[in-house]
Amino acid sequence: MSGLKIFVDLVSQPSRAVALLLEVNNIPYNKVVVNLGKGEHLSHSELKAVNPNTKVPALQEGKFCLYESGAILRYICSSRQLPDHWYPKDLERRALVDQYLDWHHSTIRIGCAHWFFAQHIARQPPTHHVIVDSKATLLKAFSILNDYTLQDNKFLTGEMISIADIQAICELTQHWMVGRNVYSGYPNIEKWVAACIKELQPQFDQVHGIIYKIKSRGLFGTDTNPEPLKSKL
Amino acid sequence: MSGLKIFVDLVSQPSRAVALLLEVNNIPYNKVVVNLGKGEHLSHSELKAVNPNTKVPALQEGKFCLYESGAILRYICSSRQLPDHWYPKDLERRALVDQYLDWHHSTIRIGCAHWFFAQHIARQPPTHHVIVDSKATLLKAFSILNDYTLQDNKFLTGEMISIADIQAICELTQHWMVGRNVYSGYPNIEKWVAACIKELQPQFDQVHGIIYKIKSRGLFGTDTNPEPLKSKL
Repeated sequence: MSGLKIFVDLVSQPSRAVALLLEVNNIPYNKVVVNLGKGEHLSHSELKAVNPNTKVPALQEGKFCLYESGAILRYICSSRQLPDHWYPKDLERRALVDQYLDWHHSTIRIGCAHWFFAQHIARQPPTHHVIVDSKATLLKAFSILNDYTLQDNKFLTGEMISIADIQAICELTQHWMVGRNVYSGYPNIEKWVAACIKELQPQFDQVHGIIYKIKSRGLFGTDTNPEPLKSKL
Repeated sequence: MSGLKIFVDLVSQPSRAVALLLEVNNIPYNKVVVNLGKGEHLSHSELKAVNPNTKVPALQEGKFCLYESGAILRYICSSRQLPDHWYPKDLERRALVDQYLDWHHSTIRIGCAHWFFAQHIARQPPTHHVIVDSKATLLKAFSILNDYTLQDNKFLTGEMISIADIQAICELTQHWMVGRNVYSGYPNIEKWVAACIKELQPQFDQVHGIIYKIKSRGLFGTDTNPEPLKSKL
């Protein structure tokens, strides 16, 4: 049994990112599934001891506890000495991975997650302003990704995949649950998504199994009008 | 002249964080002031070439360009080999600094910055929901900081100050401009704020000069009812 314990629910975008890095690199770990849909995180005493925010993913290794997916991804790369491209030792290349991981929070993460939650999960209005704000955030963010970040790069920080790509792709795939490609109409982003999926198979499909299942069963409904984001505003 | 160029406006919280780390460590740099109040960032071609998001802070060193304050803080520590406590080499201690820097975005940053912008800068309604959401976010975040993160620690990740503390304190001080201590009523946070200020003087006051000036002139108004956040909801 591995001494590395990871609390996840693969319906959670950052949980998928951490699981995907571990799976792609064949790192053994003890997976503790916390079912968010059933509200298990709210009363999970073991999770709360590791992460007082009671969110997944969270990591425990011996007495060491860690939360926040970006920090966990970095820690896994460094503590397991993963191939350099995941989180380069070169200061400038590493800084570009850090730059994306920081930028992600206020752009792709907040845009995709708040929109999805407001439209498909939240039971109480008002949610309209959240959806409007989220789409505006994503429009700006996708322009940066499409026109600058990915203009000359195969991946977000260069020619090799890194934890920045894993963090980003696992957020965008959330909307697949309702049949929506939020990045539709942005050619460089679409090309990059395809490159990520190719690079991360077969583990990508394994980690996204729950997403495919939710979509096929229509558990969160289906976007009946999946026009490009640009044309919706 | 230093080869390190930093684009800042000290009215911007993350700009102050980067400037403070540089000043406290006596690192020479070429400061390019971008006046956000005058909208200079919107048409600043030099800034846009460094950061297509046209936000400050941004860093340029030779051909290398970097944005996002968290990434810049890490890069400065590593490239200047600053004293270890700022961004420890030990993997677990470093991971805890990364954990805070990631957590910061969706908690202290979004809570403080969106609230301040909506209440004191935005010219167009509706802003009420933003203020309500921001206060709710801060209430949760302050409980975590006060009751867990700072319960047994002098600073956010232990007994020594790090870039996590600099990032956090520079966000909280934004509300000083209107005479509001957002963390009022949280004893462990109040103690930590005092410890940070003591540790970072005299550079703390230098970097915050513009904040003190704005407050004394009442440029953004004054909070006439600065009750603790807890009692306002």
